[in-house]
Amino acid sequence: MQVYLSGEIHTDWRERIGNGVAALGSDLNVRFDAPVTDHAASDDCGVAILGAEENKFWHDRKGAQVNAIRTRKGIADADVVVVRFGDKYKQWNAAFDAGYAAALGKSLIILQPAEHDHALKEVDAAALAVAREPGEVVEILRYVLTGTLPA
Amino acid sequence: MQVYLSGEIHTDWRERIGNGVAALGSDLNVRFDAPVTDHAASDDCGVAILGAEENKFWHDRKGAQVNAIRTRKGIADADVVVVRFGDKYKQWNAAFDAGYAAALGKSLIILQPAEHDHALKEVDAAALAVAREPGEVVEILRYVLTGTLPA
Amino acid sequence: MQVYLSGEIHTDWRERIGNGVAALGSDLNVRFDAPVTDHAASDDCGVAILGAEENKFWHDRKGAQVNAIRTRKGIADADVVVVRFGDKYKQWNAAFDAGYAAALGKSLIILQPAEHDHALKEVDAAALAVAREPGEVVEILRYVLTGTLPA
Amino acid sequence: MQVYLSGEIHTDWRERIGNGVAALGSDLNVRFDAPVTDHAASDDCGVAILGAEENKFWHDRKGAQVNAIRTRKGIADADVVVVRFGDKYKQWNAAFDAGYAAALGKSLIILQPAEHDHALKEVDAAALAVAREPGEVVEILRYVLTGTLPA
Amino acid sequence: MQVYLSGEIHTDWRERIGNGVAALGSDLNVRFDAPVTDHAASDDCGVAILGAEENKFWHDRKGAQVNAIRTRKGIADADVVVVRFGDKYKQWNAAFDAGYAAALGKSLIILQPAEHDHALKEVDAAALAVAREPGEVVEILRYVLTGTLPA
Amino acid sequence: MQVYLSGEIHTDWRERIGNGVAALGSDLNVRFDAPVTDHAASDDCGVAILGAEENKFWHDRKGAQVNAIRTRKGIADADVVVVRFGDKYKQWNAAFDAGYAAALGKSLIILQPAEHDHALKEVDAAALAVAREPGEVVEILRYVLTGTLPA
Amino acid sequence: MQVYLSGEIHTDWRERIGNGVAALGSDLNVRFDAPVTDHAASDDCGVAILGAEENKFWHDRKGAQVNAIRTRKGIADADVVVVRFGDKYKQWNAAFDAGYAAALGKSLIILQPAEHDHALKEVDAAALAVAREPGEVVEILRYVLTGTLPA
Amino acid sequence: MQVYLSGEIHTDWRERIGNGVAALGSDLNVRFDAPVTDHAASDDCGVAILGAEENKFWHDRKGAQVNAIRTRKGIADADVVVVRFGDKYKQWNAAFDAGYAAALGKSLIILQPAEHDHALKEVDAAALAVAREPGEVVEILRYVLTGTLPA
Repeated sequence: MQVYLSGEIHTDWRERIGNGVAALGSDLNVRFDAPVTDHAASDDCGVAILGAEENKFWHDRKGAQVNAIRTRKGIADADVVVVRFGDKYKQWNAAFDAGYAAALGKSLIILQPAEHDHALKEVDAAALAVAREPGEVVEILRYVLTGTLPA
Repeated sequence: MQVYLSGEIHTDWRERIGNGVAALGSDLNVRFDAPVTDHAASDDCGVAILGAEENKFWHDRKGAQVNAIRTRKGIADADVVVVRFGDKYKQWNAAFDAGYAAALGKSLIILQPAEHDHALKEVDAAALAVAREPGEVVEILRYVLTGTLPA
Repeated sequence: MQVYLSGEIHTDWRERIGNGVAALGSDLNVRFDAPVTDHAASDDCGVAILGAEENKFWHDRKGAQVNAIRTRKGIADADVVVVRFGDKYKQWNAAFDAGYAAALGKSLIILQPAEHDHALKEVDAAALAVAREPGEVVEILRYVLTGTLPA
Repeated sequence: MQVYLSGEIHTDWRERIGNGVAALGSDLNVRFDAPVTDHAASDDCGVAILGAEENKFWHDRKGAQVNAIRTRKGIADADVVVVRFGDKYKQWNAAFDAGYAAALGKSLIILQPAEHDHALKEVDAAALAVAREPGEVVEILRYVLTGTLPA
Repeated sequence: MQVYLSGEIHTDWRERIGNGVAALGSDLNVRFDAPVTDHAASDDCGVAILGAEENKFWHDRKGAQVNAIRTRKGIADADVVVVRFGDKYKQWNAAFDAGYAAALGKSLIILQPAEHDHALKEVDAAALAVAREPGEVVEILRYVLTGTLPA
Repeated sequence: MQVYLSGEIHTDWRERIGNGVAALGSDLNVRFDAPVTDHAASDDCGVAILGAEENKFWHDRKGAQVNAIRTRKGIADADVVVVRFGDKYKQWNAAFDAGYAAALGKSLIILQPAEHDHALKEVDAAALAVAREPGEVVEILRYVLTGTLPA
Repeated sequence: MQVYLSGEIHTDWRERIGNGVAALGSDLNVRFDAPVTDHAASDDCGVAILGAEENKFWHDRKGAQVNAIRTRKGIADADVVVVRFGDKYKQWNAAFDAGYAAALGKSLIILQPAEHDHALKEVDAAALAVAREPGEVVEILRYVLTGTLPA
Repeated sequence: MQVYLSGEIHTDWRERIGNGVAALGSDLNVRFDAPVTDHAASDDCGVAILGAEENKFWHDRKGAQVNAIRTRKGIADADVVVVRFGDKYKQWNAAFDAGYAAALGKSLIILQPAEHDHALKEVDAAALAVAREPGEVVEILRYVLTGTLPA
């Protein structure tokens, strides 16, 4: 099962999901993909590779389009797309990824604190699960692949 | 040309685009669609029609899914999807619509203040135009349909 | 908005939805389609037109395939598919239509008595609304098209 | 060849097909997938992982949506979808899966007792084979892969 | 309902279907399309418009491709594709159209004499009806649109 | 029949096709669409509407993306895409449109002088007709719609 | 490269292509698939597995549908579909496969004697190559994979 | 990641990209595909395999269609399509490939000298990156796969 981990890049939620799955043993055939999570590299990749821009708008555009090469493939190849909303920043790219994945018919899991429930209601309505903690995502993946519920 | 006007529902930007297009005369064949813009009705439609929920999470879910009947058709039928980001609220549903429309290959126009440029860079990178004012959207529609530029 | 009314054919729920929408006035632009609801004609159409079959299995097959010409177009053309489950018969064709519509990405409304909730949970999980009474479907269509909630 | 075994979960028909294929030797390249067949786990997976619900309707919804992550992938990845109808329960999820698979253009085999022939005629009309016994499904898979008929 | 009448061009079967439907009154909303049925024009259209070819193979290619402009649109726009096999010629273009229509998910009706049943079994297996006479196609269209069976 | 006229914008070939079809009478149901053919407006539309750019590269990008709103819809809505290659300029946008239309399965007619035959061989290989003069395109449209060949 | 070899089953053309490719060495990464070529098994598979039919029409239907499980997968998985027309029988299934493959956008190679050129012109017009001998198909595969032309 | 290298065949840009990626070590999982780059073989493959043509137009057609077997698969299988425009020839096949890839939703990188910027503006507007040197394409691939920027 191919899983794309989209969204918030400032906490260790991806590691927690990855480690949680790894701890369940090699029988659990899950491959993870994710965007580049180095914030500075992600912001500057366009100009670092393809040349500087005076205008910040095009600086951002160049970077966002290079990142889209990775993101689009990550979502297109995924069976399941997990989108994490944290408590900082606008996170419109996370919601954009969720919409993009929903339109492609991907199984969507949203990982969010309860305080965002109302603001995320349209996103959640397109999802197959709304989780609070990375461990719940691990349990979903285990159950979906093996039928085993948490002890 | 079918145009869906997604996003912010607290200012008169939809009216300004509609009036601007109407002022150009009936030659301009544009049909607009939009979500329900009555905030209270939009929040409560699910429970008002299908029965109350004790849990706010499911109250929201019921409403968001009823609204999705309209939103999905609006985007699916559109040639152009305009998504407006304002200066309040999380607006994740707007970004979700943008992602959804992008995945369906719709022509996307983002209408946003400059202060959001960096936060919206991934959304903008999927768009064919980033406008600042409703009048610019009117001019794009006029040009696209008639080839006429602003005087 | 094109609405396909699938499922149970022994009560007047289609008329109640049609009349309810008509009572709201001609502003409500809804076109309804449905399977042939004459049970005997529906069962025998294949052999009546294309010749008798000794074997009941092929008698049924011929009829089901002629009916599929209508059903497939009805679902393919629809924006919204309403599927009604009543309290008699197996109704596997209703559930089949729901699955077919879901896979095509149609907006699905399920109309069912509460006693079927557990048995229909997988069907309901693919729907945007679960209604109990035809009048609720009327209200959903009114709200989706006009933004007006029940008084 | 990827085969998804949908439907009835109270008899050993999946094992009989799996063993039958295995008995034909390793030349027969068939990979099977299926829903979680532990009835209790399947019913409770949503609340067991994501938290309890007071309302049984949402208890069921949460579980059905988690199960849908597995089911959708199973059907989407399949070349052949076998749907078994038994003699108990409503089995609307089985018919829903059949409709979903049909709309995706999957090759459909229905496994059913003769007593259900009339009620399943619309489902059967979308199938490439209607079998009575698991052994017939094994023979179909053998023939389709090797061209060998039963002795 | 849009109906494309493909295949044999040497008898009056299209007229018989058209007249039969017309005789049922204007309530029957059927629009017919068909290939060019003037055999000579169909064979020579390519070179007549785009210039002569010395090599008969390319003479034929040019014509077949011009005809494909009409055929592809006719099939793509159709809800129902009727393919008639007569008793002369190879009629591979008829079978090609049937395969093309089947892959697009069109509802297929095959009109054929019984003597071709064995040779057409793969084509018939993709169809929703196999008719013997044009009048049966008329009756199918009437039933599918109105639910009325032959008297 | 919806026809999109892509490519060269410096001669009157679109008028010649439009006039030629009009001269055949109103029975010929053809609707034409085309890109904006005012070269200066087409080059500057982006900055004229959305604000100047210092960098010519982004000046061009803004314009090309606004024009893409029209072009994409024109091709997506078309049954037939005619692409004209003239004897000046690089005309990569014409070839791009041809490739785009081919991938969408549109019927493609290429209008080109013989001197470009070798250079256009890959483009022509995806087309259903290669014409030399606008009048030939008129004749193709007449034949495809009415079955009538040139006198 | 996945190649499906459809059509005539009474000569050794599949072996000649397979051997020809094998003789070029293991660098040529081609996997072949084909229908069941045992004529008797192919005709009787339906009734042999699923039970006898009194009516020959349904005998044939059952077999054709079981064979379709293999054929559909073979074409769907293929990059290239080769369809061979021989000098006997109606071969409508071959033309049906060609149409089915064309509608799916598969690269089509037709293998046919010159005497069939006129009758196959519509089929050939959808193909990327028309070959006379199996050896030409081998050379096409070699060239397409390695860029090497016949000595 | 599967990368198709389309366009100009007279300089060593493909080798430079291939070597650049290889130099980064085997961790970089990139598979390259490309058209046949032997100009003479590419021009003559059709007639060399399938027989001579007197008319140069059909000589070219035969070759272009054989090459299309490779090109279509190359683009269809690719995650990323790089299209190189050089300073000679018409290069309409390169622009055609870009349009074809864009319509399929492939991530597009255009590699071009600055002198072509204006002429390529419509092509570039559909791309996620415009590079000047093969080394920049290598850096994009490295970043997209590993998140590492140039030193």
